[in-house]
Amino acid sequence: MSNKISQFVREEVLALNAYHVPESNNLIKLDNMENPYGWEAPIIDEWLQKVREVQLNRYPDPEARALQSRLREVMQIPADAGLILGNGSDELIQMICMTLAKPGSSVLSVSPSFVMYKMLATFTGMDFHSVELNDDFSLPLDSMLKKIDEVQPSVVYIAYPNNPTGNLFNEADLCQVIEASPGLVVIDEAYYAFAGDSFAKHLNRYHNMMVMRTVSKMGLAGLRLGYMMGNPEWINEFNKVRMPFNINTLTQVSAEFALQHVAILDAQTGQICKDREVLFDQMSEIEGVECYPSKANFILFKVANAKNIYNSLRDKGVLIRDLSSNGGSLSDCLRVTVGAQYENEAFVKALQESL
Amino acid sequence: MSNKISQFVREEVLALNAYHVPESNNLIKLDNMENPYGWEAPIIDEWLQKVREVQLNRYPDPEARALQSRLREVMQIPADAGLILGNGSDELIQMICMTLAKPGSSVLSVSPSFVMYKMLATFTGMDFHSVELNDDFSLPLDSMLKKIDEVQPSVVYIAYPNNPTGNLFNEADLCQVIEASPGLVVIDEAYYAFAGDSFAKHLNRYHNMMVMRTVSKMGLAGLRLGYMMGNPEWINEFNKVRMPFNINTLTQVSAEFALQHVAILDAQTGQICKDREVLFDQMSEIEGVECYPSKANFILFKVANAKNIYNSLRDKGVLIRDLSSNGGSLSDCLRVTVGAQYENEAFVKALQESL
Repeated sequence: MSNKISQFVREEVLALNAYHVPESNNLIKLDNMENPYGWEAPIIDEWLQKVREVQLNRYPDPEARALQSRLREVMQIPADAGLILGNGSDELIQMICMTLAKPGSSVLSVSPSFVMYKMLATFTGMDFHSVELNDDFSLPLDSMLKKIDEVQPSVVYIAYPNNPTGNLFNEADLCQVIEASPGLVVIDEAYYAFAGDSFAKHLNRYHNMMVMRTVSKMGLAGLRLGYMMGNPEWINEFNKVRMPFNINTLTQVSAEFALQHVAILDAQTGQICKDREVLFDQMSEIEGVECYPSKANFILFKVANAKNIYNSLRDKGVLIRDLSSNGGSLSDCLRVTVGAQYENEAFVKALQESL
Repeated sequence: MSNKISQFVREEVLALNAYHVPESNNLIKLDNMENPYGWEAPIIDEWLQKVREVQLNRYPDPEARALQSRLREVMQIPADAGLILGNGSDELIQMICMTLAKPGSSVLSVSPSFVMYKMLATFTGMDFHSVELNDDFSLPLDSMLKKIDEVQPSVVYIAYPNNPTGNLFNEADLCQVIEASPGLVVIDEAYYAFAGDSFAKHLNRYHNMMVMRTVSKMGLAGLRLGYMMGNPEWINEFNKVRMPFNINTLTQVSAEFALQHVAILDAQTGQICKDREVLFDQMSEIEGVECYPSKANFILFKVANAKNIYNSLRDKGVLIRDLSSNGGSLSDCLRVTVGAQYENEAFVKALQESL
């Protein structure tokens, strides 16, 4: 490596490996929490009529006003809440960290949880702390409150439901976390469509809480659109570090169209919720498989020799996610996305054959 | 403002105002360096056939391989150069800063230049330094070399041609800047399509130089796609802080399609270059207007009472950019984008009437 690189690049970055996404050609893709369903031809035709009208030569609306307005209506966002959009939740987490990255400031989350909380704390020079979840992946409230008192985090990230464990933390416990937090608390509802609950109902009560979501898991992963609602005074600060034209025109138009037809997506995610229960029951019946109940569109499960099982499944044409190398409570853990019925069945069959 | 906000938000962010984009409804829009031309219907039909095949429910290719391959071919990017994509140049500048933001590290550029160099240094906690251009907006080489020696910048940003002045700096001078720089030098060729020159020819010679571009000005501003080529060892580090799915599927497919038909965009930008010369001559003939020669798709010009002229133009239906509030060498300066012929003519007429 060139001397200049080792001299000028931050040590935290030098130490990282670039994110690796495994090849998925010709595999049943149950690794990334995607909705397996597309749209019927008449809907695609209607969508393309909207795309046809786009002026690609012009910059996007920097405020994405039409899309914001549609989101407020469809997601029933309170009129007095602020709203900000990002390229997926990833960019929102990045904005939050850039806004709060004072020297010596810190981020708190739980472990295991979504990897981007730690990654973006690192990229923005914030200290990262985490509290280990209990063995059943519930929130250890006392440890959490103690850690908050100790590190005085600028921001606490809580995934609700949690990824990769799939469970919803106790609501009253989270309220205590929010009340005890000196700074901001971000409730990450990426799996909102499958959860049956939301902290949006607490927006009026907590002015240091943001509710963050994405349209990825509900069926629009290709668009890269995240949104976050909460106290408009906080949103105003995040808007200052937002790149002015961060949501491209095609995403604005396509997401607005898809949300106009949200009933289609709702029917798909409703089906996924039903299939999740079927899949959970089938997996639980397999000897040697321990499943964790899920309020998301994936199921975390434990097997002996997880890495071997992962490889065997891939050899049989099914790609899931191997989390065992994370160690700790994820040792021997794999995560499967709930797909279409034929995909789930192929997975269960391959799993039985692999054990 | 809530106490929590003033306690936890970085002072540099609190001090900022959010980026404001003026209303442009029903105005001739010559404020933002957009290509005024669209595509003919048969090309749009062909593009929509590609869009039709997209799976919005799946995450984008994290490496955007098909688009990268097309960019390499169309832009003749050397096979041994690395390539990285961003949501516009903005996100690339952000990645560079996040990668290099060691405590006490600094960014160097010239003044006036593109505002995002300073903004993103601020957002990532880097010190920002700049060297004032000469009165004719040429590069003050000695001051620049002295500043490099003094602050030892981790990265130097040079817009080539420069925005908002429109000129190309002397090539030999820039080579000296690159040779004298201890860290990275980024040559920002956002206006490449109008410049008639590029530093890409020096990629083999300088391993601490990146060439950064965008497809925005060539006619695809709505897509938000920037790209950067250079030493693959540097690119590898930037890739570590890149959000894994940063380029959405629709942008990947649409940019790939547009580049396949790059002759259409080249014809449009060629026309803009011709019209730039006509516009420059017409503006130069107007008494009280001092124009600066441009190698970009805009013309910087000086008038007395710039703010009044800007308002008068807007009242007459033409939106340009008022730079006079920047002060210094931009006092009394306005910037007009080269539009379609009828737009340029409307602007010249409105300018004559306003003086």
